[in-house]
Amino acid sequence: MKACVIHGAKDLRLEQRTPPSPGETGVVVRVRAGGICGSDIHYFKDGRVGDFVIREPLVPGHEIAGEVTAVGASVSTLLPGDTVAVHPGRSCGRCPRCREGRPNLCQAVFYMGSASKFPHMQGGFCETVTVDESQCHVVRSIDATVAAFAEPLSVALHAAHRAGNLMGQRVLVIGAGPIGQLVLLAARRGGAAAVTVTDLVDASLATARRLGADEVINVGTEAGALEEAARRSGGFDVVFEVSGAPAGLNAAIDTVRPGGVIVQVGSLPGGASPVSANRIMAKELDLRGAFRFGNVFADAVSCLERGVFDVSPIITAVVPMVDAAEAFRMATERGKHLKVMIAF
Amino acid sequence: MKACVIHGAKDLRLEQRTPPSPGETGVVVRVRAGGICGSDIHYFKDGRVGDFVIREPLVPGHEIAGEVTAVGASVSTLLPGDTVAVHPGRSCGRCPRCREGRPNLCQAVFYMGSASKFPHMQGGFCETVTVDESQCHVVRSIDATVAAFAEPLSVALHAAHRAGNLMGQRVLVIGAGPIGQLVLLAARRGGAAAVTVTDLVDASLATARRLGADEVINVGTEAGALEEAARRSGGFDVVFEVSGAPAGLNAAIDTVRPGGVIVQVGSLPGGASPVSANRIMAKELDLRGAFRFGNVFADAVSCLERGVFDVSPIITAVVPMVDAAEAFRMATERGKHLKVMIAF
Amino acid sequence: MKACVIHGAKDLRLEQRTPPSPGETGVVVRVRAGGICGSDIHYFKDGRVGDFVIREPLVPGHEIAGEVTAVGASVSTLLPGDTVAVHPGRSCGRCPRCREGRPNLCQAVFYMGSASKFPHMQGGFCETVTVDESQCHVVRSIDATVAAFAEPLSVALHAAHRAGNLMGQRVLVIGAGPIGQLVLLAARRGGAAAVTVTDLVDASLATARRLGADEVINVGTEAGALEEAARRSGGFDVVFEVSGAPAGLNAAIDTVRPGGVIVQVGSLPGGASPVSANRIMAKELDLRGAFRFGNVFADAVSCLERGVFDVSPIITAVVPMVDAAEAFRMATERGKHLKVMIAF
Amino acid sequence: MKACVIHGAKDLRLEQRTPPSPGETGVVVRVRAGGICGSDIHYFKDGRVGDFVIREPLVPGHEIAGEVTAVGASVSTLLPGDTVAVHPGRSCGRCPRCREGRPNLCQAVFYMGSASKFPHMQGGFCETVTVDESQCHVVRSIDATVAAFAEPLSVALHAAHRAGNLMGQRVLVIGAGPIGQLVLLAARRGGAAAVTVTDLVDASLATARRLGADEVINVGTEAGALEEAARRSGGFDVVFEVSGAPAGLNAAIDTVRPGGVIVQVGSLPGGASPVSANRIMAKELDLRGAFRFGNVFADAVSCLERGVFDVSPIITAVVPMVDAAEAFRMATERGKHLKVMIAF
Repeated sequence: MKACVIHGAKDLRLEQRTPPSPGETGVVVRVRAGGICGSDIHYFKDGRVGDFVIREPLVPGHEIAGEVTAVGASVSTLLPGDTVAVHPGRSCGRCPRCREGRPNLCQAVFYMGSASKFPHMQGGFCETVTVDESQCHVVRSIDATVAAFAEPLSVALHAAHRAGNLMGQRVLVIGAGPIGQLVLLAARRGGAAAVTVTDLVDASLATARRLGADEVINVGTEAGALEEAARRSGGFDVVFEVSGAPAGLNAAIDTVRPGGVIVQVGSLPGGASPVSANRIMAKELDLRGAFRFGNVFADAVSCLERGVFDVSPIITAVVPMVDAAEAFRMATERGKHLKVMIAF
Repeated sequence: MKACVIHGAKDLRLEQRTPPSPGETGVVVRVRAGGICGSDIHYFKDGRVGDFVIREPLVPGHEIAGEVTAVGASVSTLLPGDTVAVHPGRSCGRCPRCREGRPNLCQAVFYMGSASKFPHMQGGFCETVTVDESQCHVVRSIDATVAAFAEPLSVALHAAHRAGNLMGQRVLVIGAGPIGQLVLLAARRGGAAAVTVTDLVDASLATARRLGADEVINVGTEAGALEEAARRSGGFDVVFEVSGAPAGLNAAIDTVRPGGVIVQVGSLPGGASPVSANRIMAKELDLRGAFRFGNVFADAVSCLERGVFDVSPIITAVVPMVDAAEAFRMATERGKHLKVMIAF
Repeated sequence: MKACVIHGAKDLRLEQRTPPSPGETGVVVRVRAGGICGSDIHYFKDGRVGDFVIREPLVPGHEIAGEVTAVGASVSTLLPGDTVAVHPGRSCGRCPRCREGRPNLCQAVFYMGSASKFPHMQGGFCETVTVDESQCHVVRSIDATVAAFAEPLSVALHAAHRAGNLMGQRVLVIGAGPIGQLVLLAARRGGAAAVTVTDLVDASLATARRLGADEVINVGTEAGALEEAARRSGGFDVVFEVSGAPAGLNAAIDTVRPGGVIVQVGSLPGGASPVSANRIMAKELDLRGAFRFGNVFADAVSCLERGVFDVSPIITAVVPMVDAAEAFRMATERGKHLKVMIAF
Repeated sequence: MKACVIHGAKDLRLEQRTPPSPGETGVVVRVRAGGICGSDIHYFKDGRVGDFVIREPLVPGHEIAGEVTAVGASVSTLLPGDTVAVHPGRSCGRCPRCREGRPNLCQAVFYMGSASKFPHMQGGFCETVTVDESQCHVVRSIDATVAAFAEPLSVALHAAHRAGNLMGQRVLVIGAGPIGQLVLLAARRGGAAAVTVTDLVDASLATARRLGADEVINVGTEAGALEEAARRSGGFDVVFEVSGAPAGLNAAIDTVRPGGVIVQVGSLPGGASPVSANRIMAKELDLRGAFRFGNVFADAVSCLERGVFDVSPIITAVVPMVDAAEAFRMATERGKHLKVMIAF
């Protein structure tokens, strides 16, 4: 079977790999759709994501859905032909982090398509993958392209949970890329009183409007508009920093109200960034990281199945696997594209 | 009456001021003891604390205790002669921050000896001050020198509350100045399983040992020892950053466990500091500012009265008011002094 | 001016009272609409609510809205002619409960139309009331009948906040009276994955359906259906007990999942009720009272103004003041009526 | 090997059982000490604990410590001869409750000596038991009698965690049996400002005094004293109900402050108890069950090893296994005994 493999910055190849077998307990999934995530783009563009550096060929991809083609003898809840959203992670259930309810911080975690460990954990941008039964969530009313959103939507829902109860809160989302758009949807679902979204790209802001943003601000062209919006309301109660730019984090610190909450969702550059950290103390802020997601995957799948969210405006291209390198290149064009999907 | 007045960096003068009257509702307190705080030192040394700059003559001082000499006609709970610890702040009780239980973030707060507003809020390093009845907490079994610790102890208790429940947690305190020492005491009171304290000054670390630190590390001379301590335990559960140095914050980020909590207590430099902010996301940390204190002053007074804490090892000098400028100079000598008290 | 006055069980009279003056700081409101609340009904029917007994003539009513007719000299934010939703409570801002952010538990609270203190706190079912500037929330796009829902909606939003973050939670609402209906709306706003509503009255359940309940169960006629619904899902994550019946609380304890949350919103009978309390321990539940509301009134007004909720299906009658006694009688007919409004 | 077996109310027999083998992954422990717990006593006295009824012969006992005598081939962290405190439970690590950090509510839990499931889970009052490696916590500086306290101490620490941060809180402990005494120790460790303990037995209250209670009240003989203590302070911030009597729960509801927290630790009678439940709403209380314990066993062992607590005053008898029935009988004598230990 064929797999997308990143060998280093800007070096993505389609390579032949041995097709997996399900073994006793596994499930073989014929991947149908895969979303290119910000971290995939970083691996492709820079050969690294923050502090995680590619040190051996890496199959990227962790936003995948497909069709079950074979199941191990002990698998009881799945049948060949089922369409499934694939949870890209497995946690151990035993380590201190798992035991305190934070499986995303599992000390022995496996997560598809990540160089956070060595040997790297190979991802899902292949024709077929073998996964655990527990990673497969059957969907019935949506296709694989939508089902592949279960992962990024989980990231957004997790970020929302990290912020705490959003009901009645005035929310700012910095960065209107795919995750920013999903965070907007999650904040609206949580009952936010109003959601403001900022970005540098008008097209992305137009999509945010379409997805229900109460106010959008192009911080590249509308000087002072964000500061003014913050001043008007006495500061935002909750800010999601999804841009991954130090300037975004500092804007969050500036525009959140005293005692407010900032959730850092975006991946900032590795090493030190310039941060107005003193104001975290002086405004008594809560700055909370949000890393991948915890126990929300089933909820994300359920939201997609029930049509709670319409994620289709976020998809700007669907590209066949044979053009995967081109798909990655397109995904780096922040002005033109939001979510680029690969059809396998 | 005489007052200590800072006119700018390194310019502290003793000046004559009109003695206050209690009015209908106020209380006149003959100040007996005042502790020089880190922010007082910053105002004296640099003419600023973080982003707050001295723009007019400022009487510093907010850690004071003394004797009631006169009370307004409507004051019912105090009598001349009472020894009181003075809460240096008044909050409005009406603004959104007060209404959500965070009076330290009150939008109309008055806080002694602070340039965070203009006109500045004048402080307590004078022979007499007028305060509200509600700011006076009567003490019976301790003298004014100990009672003046109610304010810095409140800062430490508040920082501990910001960390959440400390029972069974492995705690690191970065910075063994007076507040760091009190945070150590607060962490032990909260049931921390073990407390490690770091500093650059051996004498301060010796005091921390005396106050119950389980482990002390001189990060200037013991290279790698902190990293090793963190590695041994899988990272600290909670880190209090009390040094106010960006390097301290980065050490906190490095040595806290994934999913752990950092409380920023120290005042970092104004403007941007280099911070390994990406790891806040990648380790899913909670970085929480702690600013002054909320509702813990009465508890702090009670702890001092009941002898829960012995703060005397933290006092390294008591200087008469006439030598106030010298007291401030001494207080800047981090290697030699912890808390320098002024006797009025 | 005329006022509705309850002298004892089933004894409500229209009486003449002196019209109020605004004084220096007050606001006179010509009441236009008043909703009859469950506690009003209890005072009328039983002469008591739980442990609060009528001991002197009581003007009931705390869900009111109207028109400003006069303002005191120091009032700056309101003008005669403004339509306002009236917050029925005033808290002191100084007591320990206010200082910890729970103004609804204020030790010196004033709350319209309550016998929880003696002398009783007189309510708003009069032609005019005098209130504080801070109690008046101007509305522009809704009329007084809808604006009068700000209070019961605040009760529902507060109950939702007491439950914590509802995003993705499976929720049960026991009791589909007016507050139950509003709790349903609040749970949906908070992102509940599904909301089940139970009652004994089919008409109320039909309204719940119309307001978005995913499932309704008549626990009087559909034996075992609630237990079956709970079994299917492994138990509800959150149950709101709004019926005020001990059987409702026990149903909550039975059908909530281990580790789940019950919010007691309804007023249970005074004295002891039979409760399967051992299971609170054995299932490690959180049973949380919700009393009136905290800081959500402005949010409730905003929701009504923005049309987040359509409360009109809850209004089953609007009765002129002259027929107030009849309005109260109608309000006691649980099978026929949800919210009965009085037009003043 | 011999085992204690309860066949029904007051019917405890010493019976011969097949000695266990460690298998590949297990550990055989020669039990040295076992503490008789309240639930053991209930099984012995009544044939049931709350809603859990003995339906087949049950080996009781879950507070045990002993010596490793054999280990399976894959066990790497233990050696024969090690003294271990035995965690009596195993959770699955996979179910929703485990995944949210509440292993004590695991849907597939195994817990020694409990009739909460059928077939019952057999306990540890035998000469030898086989357990998982993960259940064994090696102790070095304490003997098995003290080590056997790790389990009840875990219960107390868990109850304290359920209460939240206790620093500065005024605490009431209702019921001075062994768990009540340990809750007192836990509350003091957590920084409670003051701890009041009530019971009907003076000897138990004397032990509480010895363990650091600030105030003890015999609610059988000192009429009105508890109410007076509550009135003096405006109500307790946190109440631990450890008596298991409905009257205890109602006293908790009466004496806790508005907005306060009650933790139900004691096992109340099965079925309905008379509870003044309306006040849970009217005082907006948090009533939280505490069931067994979550992730605190290692912390409990560490506290015992470090001598944070001296539990010896709680042990009132050590009885050889051959007299186990007599030990159980003694343990039912609440006036005479606190913790009765069996020496195996």
